Amino acid sequence: MASTMSTTTDDIDFMKATIRLARRNLGRTGTNPSVGCLIVRDGQVVGRGVTAPGGRPHAEPVALAEAGELARGATAYVTLEPCAHHGATPPCARTLISAGIARVVTAVVDPDERVNSKGHAMLREAGVVVETGLLEAEAGHDLAPYLVHKSLRRSFVTLKLAVSPDGLLGLRGGRQVAVTGTEARTQVHLMRAEHHAILIGAGTAIEDDPELTCRLAGLEDRSPQRIVLDAHARLHAGLKLVTSARETPLLVAGPVNPALADSGAEFLACEYADGRVALPELLEDLGARGVQSVLVEGGARVAEAFLAAGLVDRIALFTGAWRVGDGVDPARHVVSPITAATPPKGYGLTSTGAFGQDRLHIYDRA
Amino acid sequence: MASTMSTTTDDIDFMKATIRLARRNLGRTGTNPSVGCLIVRDGQVVGRGVTAPGGRPHAEPVALAEAGELARGATAYVTLEPCAHHGATPPCARTLISAGIARVVTAVVDPDERVNSKGHAMLREAGVVVETGLLEAEAGHDLAPYLVHKSLRRSFVTLKLAVSPDGLLGLRGGRQVAVTGTEARTQVHLMRAEHHAILIGAGTAIEDDPELTCRLAGLEDRSPQRIVLDAHARLHAGLKLVTSARETPLLVAGPVNPALADSGAEFLACEYADGRVALPELLEDLGARGVQSVLVEGGARVAEAFLAAGLVDRIALFTGAWRVGDGVDPARHVVSPITAATPPKGYGLTSTGAFGQDRLHIYDRA
Repeated sequence: MASTMSTTTDDIDFMKATIRLARRNLGRTGTNPSVGCLIVRDGQVVGRGVTAPGGRPHAEPVALAEAGELARGATAYVTLEPCAHHGATPPCARTLISAGIARVVTAVVDPDERVNSKGHAMLREAGVVVETGLLEAEAGHDLAPYLVHKSLRRSFVTLKLAVSPDGLLGLRGGRQVAVTGTEARTQVHLMRAEHHAILIGAGTAIEDDPELTCRLAGLEDRSPQRIVLDAHARLHAGLKLVTSARETPLLVAGPVNPALADSGAEFLACEYADGRVALPELLEDLGARGVQSVLVEGGARVAEAFLAAGLVDRIALFTGAWRVGDGVDPARHVVSPITAATPPKGYGLTSTGAFGQDRLHIYDRA
Repeated sequence: MASTMSTTTDDIDFMKATIRLARRNLGRTGTNPSVGCLIVRDGQVVGRGVTAPGGRPHAEPVALAEAGELARGATAYVTLEPCAHHGATPPCARTLISAGIARVVTAVVDPDERVNSKGHAMLREAGVVVETGLLEAEAGHDLAPYLVHKSLRRSFVTLKLAVSPDGLLGLRGGRQVAVTGTEARTQVHLMRAEHHAILIGAGTAIEDDPELTCRLAGLEDRSPQRIVLDAHARLHAGLKLVTSARETPLLVAGPVNPALADSGAEFLACEYADGRVALPELLEDLGARGVQSVLVEGGARVAEAFLAAGLVDRIALFTGAWRVGDGVDPARHVVSPITAATPPKGYGLTSTGAFGQDRLHIYDRA
């Protein structure tokens, strides 16, 4: 809930800037969320912080260190409630108090049971003015993987689909069809960098032989872990995913596969249902291992399985510019379960974008 | 609490056997606990199950599969309450009911909030006789890492100390001193296999250059992750821990160290307090990554830091047979904070053992 009483236009602009700042380390902060913090005094930004790669230090001490003595009497904007639990270093709420911050404006309450409004309470008890819920939905969109992981104790799932205007994901039994163009593919690489893991099925791994890394200049070191559903140990040692397993981790969800011995691939013991990897248990186990978010990239059967199990939290639907099914035997059409014309039930459109000639629609679970 | 009303001597013997069975996969079941399940009919064991390596499947379906139709009307002994939460596969409580089990005897209630007596309730509602708390302390000793990880949300810590009868951990500025013999060292290797991670300080890593793997015949593949506290990036590429990082994972708790580039070592962002890695935050982050248990192996300063922070859950104190300090300048003595003569305050002795001429005392937090 927005506490609008004393919220000003400035507050909104500063919080927007704080949310943008937090985005910088999305997917890089381990099991902690990527949080932004801005220290503002007399309308001037005097300190900036974002959770460091790996998750520590948190955003607030970084921003306060930059602000130094200027923090006294200043306002702190934070995308997530400051933490309240003690370790060897003080909680962020305490650090803000010690620095003399007069007012704290936050977007989202931290559902972690060790925080859960205790950070706000600690600040208020020390006489700090606290306003919460400013741009909660916007900040919450980026924090969604953290929030889902904390509350549902499983990995957050983004399903990526690339659909032609005639509603196809591709064509069966032929070469790979490029549904979208370069700009959209660049955006997919950025999405990879912002997730903890990428997941595909063994069929796609074998047919397309993708590497599934982030190949954006400057972000090469941000390739997340690759996960392949392989209930029947079909992967073989010649696949790019396998030969690159010592550089970028590969987790095979399925039985130990002797063909991948010494490849560096790791195996995850799974439950099975109807001969396929049981997805609720898989996401629960990945969550327990600290995998906050998974980008599901295909193929069509994997996408449908995640949708059918009700395990998709966000859908990134790319729509290309060119029809691919004309003049091809309809039996070869791989039809998308979702298109912009038939949006997913139970989801709301949260943003749209254009990448070259392609469109991106983002849907979030309602 | 033991429900002794209808517990028989047979029950105790069968539960003891179930606890021994559960020990088989200690440290190998990922983020799940290693649980044992025995199905007994007319005094005969007809099914045996232990949580599979990786954590799935659980013990109960494995034991029920072996028992087959003989499970109907039988008693199931389980070291931990059967799970109650649904995924793609049914919860174990439901599986026991479907198999026609008439009576379930358990040792420990599962504190996981999705279970937490709901498994027992589900069984009782279906008319199954349920008795809980049998040999709770014995089963709880092995389940302690899981229980601590669930409730405190940090890794369980076992501190291993090897002390000479004159109370020394070793001698400063000389060669490494072997305080204990071969049999005790074999036991340490077994303890390593039963933990999720082994932790030492950078000083010990550099001076002793250990490999910290499990080198027991048949258990070579059970070497846990090695963790080194390295706040000042002192590790170098020639160390055995580093050169073996592609075979057995090495996690460096400290800043990224360019000297270890391309070694396969992973770095964990840390908080620091007084120039050292902040241990409460470290254990919290390891816990969030699914590291249930850590065996702290040295050196003396690391041991003292864990004890001072109140973060030691269990102490494995090996006492050797030979004095090592006689005739050596006392300034070179590295004195142990704990000996069998000066046991740790706030801990209780839970077991003892003899390995060759050496003794082992296990203390658990009271």
